[in-house]
Amino acid sequence: MAIRYPNGKKYTPPNSEVKKRSIKDYSYSNRGKTLEDEIDEANDFYLQRQIAVIHKKPVPIQIVKVEYPSRSAAVIREAYFRTPSTTDYNGIYEGYHIDFDAKETESKTSFPLKNVHPHQVEHMTVVAKQRGICFLLIRFSSMERYFVVPLEMLQNAWTRMLTGGRKSISLVEFEEQAIEVKPTYSPRIDYLQAVRKMLP
Amino acid sequence: MAIRYPNGKKYTPPNSEVKKRSIKDYSYSNRGKTLEDEIDEANDFYLQRQIAVIHKKPVPIQIVKVEYPSRSAAVIREAYFRTPSTTDYNGIYEGYHIDFDAKETESKTSFPLKNVHPHQVEHMTVVAKQRGICFLLIRFSSMERYFVVPLEMLQNAWTRMLTGGRKSISLVEFEEQAIEVKPTYSPRIDYLQAVRKMLP
Repeated sequence: MAIRYPNGKKYTPPNSEVKKRSIKDYSYSNRGKTLEDEIDEANDFYLQRQIAVIHKKPVPIQIVKVEYPSRSAAVIREAYFRTPSTTDYNGIYEGYHIDFDAKETESKTSFPLKNVHPHQVEHMTVVAKQRGICFLLIRFSSMERYFVVPLEMLQNAWTRMLTGGRKSISLVEFEEQAIEVKPTYSPRIDYLQAVRKMLP
Repeated sequence: MAIRYPNGKKYTPPNSEVKKRSIKDYSYSNRGKTLEDEIDEANDFYLQRQIAVIHKKPVPIQIVKVEYPSRSAAVIREAYFRTPSTTDYNGIYEGYHIDFDAKETESKTSFPLKNVHPHQVEHMTVVAKQRGICFLLIRFSSMERYFVVPLEMLQNAWTRMLTGGRKSISLVEFEEQAIEVKPTYSPRIDYLQAVRKMLP
């Protein structure tokens, strides 16, 4: 698991990758942005142009102790991170309910399924039964490649793992069965381009 | 504004109302439950029977300081409540994207619009443009009456207020234009019964 800071953002080494890039590459680079930053950027773009309304849910917190200083805002003094029971992102796109989670891996060959929690698969399964559009958005960070993985592809890999098969999805499987999102200019990760191909 | 505790639940005087009720009333009483509890109960019911998948979003928090004690969970030591930019509830019901907020009033004659934030009206307006089903679920707590207010009715009252008209929606208007949810046994507040009447 990647190191995660309390703001939910993944720790990213300071621009180590950016320095290696040529000037040509640089204009399309993510400049050390987290996947969350990139999705936020896309969602802002979609919201401003009224293309879709998709938000990240707040991180769930168990609050234990709060102080109420006079004449200033309440301060939480003791709280703990809780495990989310759903996915991180949902919203609506042209009448379709959208529900997904975003994951990153440093691997260049496969996506380890240990990055996905069983309750997330369960949640997306019940949402899909209600005709929601469910998927994972996966970044292979070291290669800057992005894929939208339809729930069905995830479910097949999940079942394979539970029945003793491999515990990851290979890059070849991504290339054959997932929908690649090629970085563009604005928004950089226009993932709804891929989602469009999943619609009934 | 009602007093709100950090867990997002409204302060409820300890069973002051329940004691006044007859035994007959008691079986259908809310036993001091908050509106949030009642909606949670309905959402659990819908999820278990695969009727709908609707969740409350976590309360957004700005985290400032976190401690990492060795061999135990991270502890948030300083954090603040943030204003939500969307509504509290969303999900999917038979292919429809559902998006709503829940509000309570102690008034017996009207619902004060100061309980609704401008950004909530804006959020629901853009969601409705994407063909989402948007509404308020309002409890008149002192009368135990519940109404689903379609976004259009809220927008009309909102425009009226902004153009110098009354700053509330009268109970008569609720009775004429909103959809009443009569408490039943299980779930007590079966609000999807009312939502069904709003579907295109």
